Amino acid sequence: MTPKALSFDVFGTCVDWRRAVARDTAMHVPGVDPLAFAVAWRGQYQPAMERVRTGARGYVALDELHLENLHHVAESFAVTVPDPAALNTAWERLDPWPDVVPGLTVLRRSVPIAPCSNGSIAMMTALARYGGLPWDCILGADIARSYKPKPEVYRACAAVLRLAESDVMMVAAHNADLAAAADAGLATAFVPRRDEHGPGQTVDLRAEGPWTVVAEDFRDLATQLFPDPV
Amino acid sequence: MTPKALSFDVFGTCVDWRRAVARDTAMHVPGVDPLAFAVAWRGQYQPAMERVRTGARGYVALDELHLENLHHVAESFAVTVPDPAALNTAWERLDPWPDVVPGLTVLRRSVPIAPCSNGSIAMMTALARYGGLPWDCILGADIARSYKPKPEVYRACAAVLRLAESDVMMVAAHNADLAAAADAGLATAFVPRRDEHGPGQTVDLRAEGPWTVVAEDFRDLATQLFPDPV
Repeated sequence: MTPKALSFDVFGTCVDWRRAVARDTAMHVPGVDPLAFAVAWRGQYQPAMERVRTGARGYVALDELHLENLHHVAESFAVTVPDPAALNTAWERLDPWPDVVPGLTVLRRSVPIAPCSNGSIAMMTALARYGGLPWDCILGADIARSYKPKPEVYRACAAVLRLAESDVMMVAAHNADLAAAADAGLATAFVPRRDEHGPGQTVDLRAEGPWTVVAEDFRDLATQLFPDPV
Repeated sequence: MTPKALSFDVFGTCVDWRRAVARDTAMHVPGVDPLAFAVAWRGQYQPAMERVRTGARGYVALDELHLENLHHVAESFAVTVPDPAALNTAWERLDPWPDVVPGLTVLRRSVPIAPCSNGSIAMMTALARYGGLPWDCILGADIARSYKPKPEVYRACAAVLRLAESDVMMVAAHNADLAAAADAGLATAFVPRRDEHGPGQTVDLRAEGPWTVVAEDFRDLATQLFPDPV
């Protein structure tokens, strides 16, 4: 199966949010354990989006949710963040894993590549400029005005690219993301990121579903999908 | 005034649709005047979008409108197009004017750049891959689900980038496009394309409004906006 386009999860799959957010936290909030703070901040991610997914709240871009979550986390750590808006832009400066830019560069010689992230178009644009991610266009939550794993987010990637769902392959380091993408009709590729959550990581260490492709990293994905690139 | 992002008209401003569509027409429809056919095809562009703008018809991507218009034009030229869907992809292979890629490459060192076109995200993605247009993201009609010159299309550029409207500058070779962008609150830059309609061109030869910037081409625009690029 050769996809006609590739859509990518970003946080964890393309970029290392944990160390980058911790680095900015250390600069903005002295005296707090920056890695613990980053993990707790990220921990508020799913519950905040869930209120949008259930319809309890209208669509709000992830930038807003991150800022609200920052207030909650600061409260639970009993610290004051002098400039929350500035710290919130940490999510626009996340370093790509080493294989990502070279892998994407090879992949996009064959097909269009786009993020299908819960991050906003603004956040994904900033992140691409920071890390040199060579996207052809930016898809995801802002396009569907909903959050993964809602099926409409994956389906919107195909619809906007004017492709059949089965011609688009979702690439992610998270089995749950791929399960939802497969349910929405997309092809799937699993790439493990065994260090996303640090040394003690216990989840998503390996493929746990019948994914279309399992690759070691983005370069391996390129070799498997397009052995004879144009 | 230094903009925080630049949004670009594409057909005519960035790419030469007339010669490129004529070239593909000549391949697909022998025996027809290809430049006249291309101009007539493009001539159906505004009336087709107007039905969407007035609400007489729901939002339909420009790819669909182009295909419908192709049938009308073929009828009026009394010719048969053997493969209309293939000829319709001519709009995905339009050559950039010579200053466009070098100019965009310099401009995006300073701020994000995005098309704000009536073309779909799929069409703009294909066009960028064909011509090497180094967009940071793709905005425009598909994002707003409406067509320029409706104000919501320009405003959506700013909203999606999470910027104030006055911080986004619309770049176009068409005075009417800039008038609508200015009404929507955007800054404006006029760049003439005196050959868009061929040797007899009578419209848009010069700036006809109080645009924020008037430049000779994209390289001149870069020099005027960012004399000391980062």
